[in-house]
Amino acid sequence: MKQTQLCTHTKKDAPKDEVARNAQLLIRGGFIHKEMAGVYSYLPLGLRVIKKIEEIIRQEMNAIGGQEIVMTALQEKEVWEKTGRWDDAVVDTWFKTRLKNDTELGLAYTHEPAITALMKDYISSYRDLPAYLYQFQTKFRNELRAKSGLFRGREFIMKDLYSFSRTDEELNAFYEKVITAYQKIFVRVGIGDRTYMTLASGGTFGTAYSHEFQTLTAAGEDTIYVHKGKNIAVNKEVLNDDTLRGLNITEDELVEEKSIEVGNIYKLGTFYSKPLNLVYTAESGAVLPAVMGSYGIGVGRLMGTITEVLSHEKGIYWPKEVAPFAVHMISLCRESVDVHAAEALYAEFILGHIEVLYDDRDVRAGEKFADADLLGIPIRIVVSEKTLAHGMVEVRGLRESDTELVKKEDLLACVSRKV
Amino acid sequence: MKQTQLCTHTKKDAPKDEVARNAQLLIRGGFIHKEMAGVYSYLPLGLRVIKKIEEIIRQEMNAIGGQEIVMTALQEKEVWEKTGRWDDAVVDTWFKTRLKNDTELGLAYTHEPAITALMKDYISSYRDLPAYLYQFQTKFRNELRAKSGLFRGREFIMKDLYSFSRTDEELNAFYEKVITAYQKIFVRVGIGDRTYMTLASGGTFGTAYSHEFQTLTAAGEDTIYVHKGKNIAVNKEVLNDDTLRGLNITEDELVEEKSIEVGNIYKLGTFYSKPLNLVYTAESGAVLPAVMGSYGIGVGRLMGTITEVLSHEKGIYWPKEVAPFAVHMISLCRESVDVHAAEALYAEFILGHIEVLYDDRDVRAGEKFADADLLGIPIRIVVSEKTLAHGMVEVRGLRESDTELVKKEDLLACVSRKV
Repeated sequence: MKQTQLCTHTKKDAPKDEVARNAQLLIRGGFIHKEMAGVYSYLPLGLRVIKKIEEIIRQEMNAIGGQEIVMTALQEKEVWEKTGRWDDAVVDTWFKTRLKNDTELGLAYTHEPAITALMKDYISSYRDLPAYLYQFQTKFRNELRAKSGLFRGREFIMKDLYSFSRTDEELNAFYEKVITAYQKIFVRVGIGDRTYMTLASGGTFGTAYSHEFQTLTAAGEDTIYVHKGKNIAVNKEVLNDDTLRGLNITEDELVEEKSIEVGNIYKLGTFYSKPLNLVYTAESGAVLPAVMGSYGIGVGRLMGTITEVLSHEKGIYWPKEVAPFAVHMISLCRESVDVHAAEALYAEFILGHIEVLYDDRDVRAGEKFADADLLGIPIRIVVSEKTLAHGMVEVRGLRESDTELVKKEDLLACVSRKV
Repeated sequence: MKQTQLCTHTKKDAPKDEVARNAQLLIRGGFIHKEMAGVYSYLPLGLRVIKKIEEIIRQEMNAIGGQEIVMTALQEKEVWEKTGRWDDAVVDTWFKTRLKNDTELGLAYTHEPAITALMKDYISSYRDLPAYLYQFQTKFRNELRAKSGLFRGREFIMKDLYSFSRTDEELNAFYEKVITAYQKIFVRVGIGDRTYMTLASGGTFGTAYSHEFQTLTAAGEDTIYVHKGKNIAVNKEVLNDDTLRGLNITEDELVEEKSIEVGNIYKLGTFYSKPLNLVYTAESGAVLPAVMGSYGIGVGRLMGTITEVLSHEKGIYWPKEVAPFAVHMISLCRESVDVHAAEALYAEFILGHIEVLYDDRDVRAGEKFADADLLGIPIRIVVSEKTLAHGMVEVRGLRESDTELVKKEDLLACVSRKV
């Protein structure tokens, strides 16, 4: 895409009330737009990142047998009442609304009860199990204070996977598969080296433990205790002798760190299937509740986390699997013969199916470089009169200090090896 | 995908309150699930169709310079008040909700004011124009009575494109491009031959006319007057002497038809840009409001329309560009040697990147064929002991009466030519 045609441009400043680095950089870069506190639109550059993150997650969900669906924001009160979670005193982050006939509806903050009710239509026999469904979906949480940019929103995109199994053993085996899939996802989006599977409380679901995936960052809201040797961590809530003994570690081996939760996985067991009567007939003839699991990743929050941890004060370092473009080609050319050479290189990238943002703007070189730093596209190419005179262009990785001079004719082949 | 692994199955009956054929067939086939009146989830088969429709629209929007974004459901009152459309007496289909501090919010039924406000951040000079942005997005309308399945929902997926131009001429030129793009879209999704560009009222936007794209169906809510010779139509609201004279047609050349609106395009002009003060500095130095257009397609409604018009009472005829799978391979094999042959053919399709639903279920042949009729996948392959004995399989187009016998070894090549 030519940068003159991009509908957004960079900004010197973020809104004054944005203190989180992730929101500051993403707003300044034109990746997101703040509609109100905790509510952000995704602009063309930001949506490209979101789609790449989603596609990575989708591939890993499909690989473990997940089937994608889309559910609805509007939720009926009845289903929620059966699970005891409609009352604002129990769940204090509901957004609620009303039909014309005054029937109250909720805006989904999770789809666990809805999918349990839905699957009653499709699960009746042991032959219908196991079933794994996932969704990328907007969730709504009426946070008293929305803060930290994309870390804690009132409206945000999540991936949720729900599993329905016959037995605890079947759930446990799938749960392990999800752990492996999640680890792959966090590696692929570029934060695998600082993301820890973290033992956490089972919450309200009646199981002893759940697991969070926590990414180390000083901007995080959580405190975790990391065992670097074993590559695991423990959440503050469950840091006790029993937990330590179970993990065969001691407290003095742990390092306290600030972190942000990018994913969580729960064994729901029969927490929802019992009250909502999602049952199946087993091979033995017994009628049993389905055994469920729930596995979330905050997609928007993940984009915020990548921004927070892979950035400097002037811009982002997008990992190549999630970068909005593979290549940022900056033209400093003024003479028409050089401009034509730059255009020809751009055309080569398009034909070679390499995603390129081509800075063809008529602005100062300094402004172009500052914007390129902010946008953080992994490979930077500079096309200038000076090097074109020798038939060369400059190529540099975003985190590399050295520039490589590459012959014009070899540029596509050179870049193809890097993307 | 193996049908034994699909999380849904077909149903004999749709909910009693669903009278529209589109909802009946889509629910019976396991494409959608009714959450409440006018609110449907998309199940794996249905989401595959939705994604194909979206991808066709996306390609055509990109081809005319559109840039994709995602906006938010939650909307601030202030922006809407400036356009005079916050009041329930003016817009009677609002869903509203509240923040914890009691601030009222709306759930977007359109994003026209929001994107006008957003673009104030990115448009200030004539150099920033034109700009074309589009979104696939859930919209909310608090319909008193939701009816007709996917034709009129309370929560539904729309594509909206918004254009920002310098002058009326620039808007008019882009408007013509959108018309051509829309015509391509309706042809590609399989309803081009019965979809008419229809002159309609300019509504509240202060222009004389807008255009709707209306698809002929007895189940439609609208009445239009079609000029088959000129391939255009006129909406009831604007059927008058002035209109007819403008189109150079006479009333007796028109045929009254029932139809459903699948798209609409409006010249908004400065209806939103003036009150929201979205202005730019022209080359002359004058400060002028941006000239806007708005272009919608109901994605879910389009899926409903395809179902309604390309179906029989027992099932759907999916056009190949939007079908959930290209091929439905039905195995009637019982002996293990034949089952192995069917599995091998399935593996060939997977390796050949042909989307195939493989009915490997252990159910009667009659049930398999009835389900295949209902699901409506365009190419049907029957693998049975009888033909395998001669090294052959049966291939048939969904709307063809004749079956073709194809050598097992030639199957992939034969099907590749058809998809």
